[in-house]
Amino acid sequence: MALVKLANYADASPEARAVFDDIMATRDTDYINHIWRALAVHPPMLKRFWGQMKEIMINPSRLDPLTKELIYLAVSITNDCTYCINTHTAAARKKGMDDEILAELNEIVALANAGNRLTSGLQLEVDEVLDQRQRSPKWKAARSARGKKSTRTTTRKRQTGSVASQTMASRKTKR
Amino acid sequence: MALVKLANYADASPEARAVFDDIMATRDTDYINHIWRALAVHPPMLKRFWGQMKEIMINPSRLDPLTKELIYLAVSITNDCTYCINTHTAAARKKGMDDEILAELNEIVALANAGNRLTSGLQLEVDEVLDQRQRSPKWKAARSARGKKSTRTTTRKRQTGSVASQTMASRKTKR
Amino acid sequence: MALVKLANYADASPEARAVFDDIMATRDTDYINHIWRALAVHPPMLKRFWGQMKEIMINPSRLDPLTKELIYLAVSITNDCTYCINTHTAAARKKGMDDEILAELNEIVALANAGNRLTSGLQLEVDEVLDQRQRSPKWKAARSARGKKSTRTTTRKRQTGSVASQTMASRKTKR
Amino acid sequence: MALVKLANYADASPEARAVFDDIMATRDTDYINHIWRALAVHPPMLKRFWGQMKEIMINPSRLDPLTKELIYLAVSITNDCTYCINTHTAAARKKGMDDEILAELNEIVALANAGNRLTSGLQLEVDEVLDQRQRSPKWKAARSARGKKSTRTTTRKRQTGSVASQTMASRKTKR
Amino acid sequence: MALVKLANYADASPEARAVFDDIMATRDTDYINHIWRALAVHPPMLKRFWGQMKEIMINPSRLDPLTKELIYLAVSITNDCTYCINTHTAAARKKGMDDEILAELNEIVALANAGNRLTSGLQLEVDEVLDQRQRSPKWKAARSARGKKSTRTTTRKRQTGSVASQTMASRKTKR
Amino acid sequence: MALVKLANYADASPEARAVFDDIMATRDTDYINHIWRALAVHPPMLKRFWGQMKEIMINPSRLDPLTKELIYLAVSITNDCTYCINTHTAAARKKGMDDEILAELNEIVALANAGNRLTSGLQLEVDEVLDQRQRSPKWKAARSARGKKSTRTTTRKRQTGSVASQTMASRKTKR
Repeated sequence: MALVKLANYADASPEARAVFDDIMATRDTDYINHIWRALAVHPPMLKRFWGQMKEIMINPSRLDPLTKELIYLAVSITNDCTYCINTHTAAARKKGMDDEILAELNEIVALANAGNRLTSGLQLEVDEVLDQRQRSPKWKAARSARGKKSTRTTTRKRQTGSVASQTMASRKTKR
Repeated sequence: MALVKLANYADASPEARAVFDDIMATRDTDYINHIWRALAVHPPMLKRFWGQMKEIMINPSRLDPLTKELIYLAVSITNDCTYCINTHTAAARKKGMDDEILAELNEIVALANAGNRLTSGLQLEVDEVLDQRQRSPKWKAARSARGKKSTRTTTRKRQTGSVASQTMASRKTKR
Repeated sequence: MALVKLANYADASPEARAVFDDIMATRDTDYINHIWRALAVHPPMLKRFWGQMKEIMINPSRLDPLTKELIYLAVSITNDCTYCINTHTAAARKKGMDDEILAELNEIVALANAGNRLTSGLQLEVDEVLDQRQRSPKWKAARSARGKKSTRTTTRKRQTGSVASQTMASRKTKR
Repeated sequence: MALVKLANYADASPEARAVFDDIMATRDTDYINHIWRALAVHPPMLKRFWGQMKEIMINPSRLDPLTKELIYLAVSITNDCTYCINTHTAAARKKGMDDEILAELNEIVALANAGNRLTSGLQLEVDEVLDQRQRSPKWKAARSARGKKSTRTTTRKRQTGSVASQTMASRKTKR
Repeated sequence: MALVKLANYADASPEARAVFDDIMATRDTDYINHIWRALAVHPPMLKRFWGQMKEIMINPSRLDPLTKELIYLAVSITNDCTYCINTHTAAARKKGMDDEILAELNEIVALANAGNRLTSGLQLEVDEVLDQRQRSPKWKAARSARGKKSTRTTTRKRQTGSVASQTMASRKTKR
Repeated sequence: MALVKLANYADASPEARAVFDDIMATRDTDYINHIWRALAVHPPMLKRFWGQMKEIMINPSRLDPLTKELIYLAVSITNDCTYCINTHTAAARKKGMDDEILAELNEIVALANAGNRLTSGLQLEVDEVLDQRQRSPKWKAARSARGKKSTRTTTRKRQTGSVASQTMASRKTKR
């Protein structure tokens, strides 16, 4: 069931058909999952989400396919997404996940959810020696590099006046 | 601050620069927000996320720009995302949100979060007369349409044997 | 800091002042927390949220005041709400929470968050013997009781035709 | 199904009946949704939640009815509330939502959820030029306005002593 | 249903059986809930989660059994965990929860979820007089107490050099 | 800062000291993170959470240490836990995560959060061919195996009478 009609190949728009073709070719299958048939209700949405999924999850990258599925699953479990947990458990099993790794994954997810709440409930401050945040360097406008004279700046910049006064203001309001 | 170094135009890769150029042109500004400078740590990620943001939030569509910002804000408030609440409140104000609409938005978001929990805590079943879910039509493989003979089917189809036995099985396990 | 200007008594509207007065009288204090001063940006919102807080959290009820605060805190910790965790920890301490109870609360919250994910990740079905959900009795319209002839029914009722056919349909689509 | 017995008009308490009557009159229907019949298990809860829903979602306000439903839906989707997604999709469709707007809504919700995590995962700091938070003005007690001499102040005020020393203290601990 | 096979006593490993025995003895029952039978897929996980549940929720402590169940339920409702809501509603009813307390619990949970979002959406800063966070005292290494000469310090300590320079640095970067 | 006083070695209880010793020995460091010093407010809580962390995250297992940290981070990002994101980013970097892997992780987490909402907003039903849930086998009481005559069964079993009638009932109410 779904809140929109699931498309079939025969009644799909040309734009949706092109995506269905790419899915079937990429995955070497004749079957299209519900998610793609539902997204076909708005073909640009189908194209965008499939594009992301293919580039991020399927195309080769630094992380191996199983690790990517485990990360996807960890999020889906935390969000309690029944559809995603089932489909990505199927995908992870194809890539080598067995019951023991499934158990490990779930226990890490449970532990992290517990740890997240403990640090929140106790309102912990990040240890200085572990703080990974780096101070943000100021944005340097791309004027010369872009080879054109900028005629517009952001609103507040104008309000605070000169570069010098803004620097002073930023020092005071920093948090 | 951020967990990665925020890029400046001068030190950005050509791929990242192209996105920065598009952002500045699309928004008619010389300023690039932290989010884009951080995503530049991995240019394909910057390109993908900006592409989505532009196509979904900036390009003209059925929903007007203010409504789109209010929806984005409703999610960001529910997820308690400080960065997003600030930047999209700024964007919504530019598009016409005043204090009263901000108040209305917040009250609807609060009410919906309350209502979501009440229906969960009481384990409510959707009223038949309001159930919006439609029965999913079975997927029809695209064989003839694609003009090639498929040689592969999904794993479980093979396991359950003939089409007839699968139909029977599906009738029993339907939920 | 806040996204709206925090009101002071002197510049508040009469409707907001009436709520401020009720807060100060109910709590026997001259101090008004940020939340109320911010909600005053839209007085009906201030009135509604204070009304709920007073009736649910402050007025005497079956649950004692400390238990109510612990429940409020459990939710706020799960949602990682810094403002709420601080203000309701303060409230709970006034009502008797010490460090040991604070620790117990946090450990239960962490355990529940872990348990919630384990059952989700493993896609557990509720044990029949523990299932607390009761079958919903059909709604009986209030016609005679309200002493008027109804001239309108919901849309789908009309579509499915007679009461008899709807009953049959509901039997089939029940889940 | 539900964790409490759904009330029918005939067996509802007078207080619950009064709310049922108001719902049927306001919505011009003879049908009462499960949520209201379940909340009738505790009539003050029914009265409060219906009161909120009517004042915030149904009574005319600055935002139009469809926009309000889209905001409510955006939250319900983010929280994965099956009951709310179905009932408010039905409500939004009545107010003009078609499949294309439904698709747009879902894609904005998905994008916002993605964006919320990116800014969190990268630990982004709000851009100074976009920071919408205003410094909170100190609370000014309402003594003269309320026409009585206050005899009680908050605990910490006493500890930090004079107004002058508190101002100094606040400067140091500000974050 | 579940993503792993639910164990029965006869086919459980000795380590899992020992936990099953402890559950049945502790709860004085012959019935084992789905959660424990599923966790038996990885006995160390079963042992760990049951150990936590027993020590935190079942063993006597400062909070009474009903209050502990209400806190567990408040989290499970906020996370919309169907399995947990059903099983812990059953447990809470055994410990004295009736429909009215169930209603109160749900209304507090709903109110807290609403309040959490209001403070987030308005980006409220904690009132100084309510701020419960205490400044963290610096860690004092346990050298003498542990009776051995430490030969290793954390990385950043080395980078910032002497203790004096670190103290100065921490003063500047404190937030 | 924190809601409880962070313990130092000198003032910690013997039970807490034993955990501090184990942490320092296991991690080969003299530094104890804020989380452990805060949990020392209730030594059994410190012991339990450290025990879990050590057994699940530090002891060798099927998943390699970096993958475990990435899973922990994916959850912490989804929950927006500042403390956890910083400390586990530090831990993941020590185990080999560089900026590119950090970027990949974040993009998968963002994509999964987006996908989770799309399937929720469209109310998708799991594809039969992908459904990973197995039918739960009935619990078989451990009577003979435990070598004692059970004198107690669960409440509802008694109500539904004989084994045969329960089996029939379960067939009808199964979902």
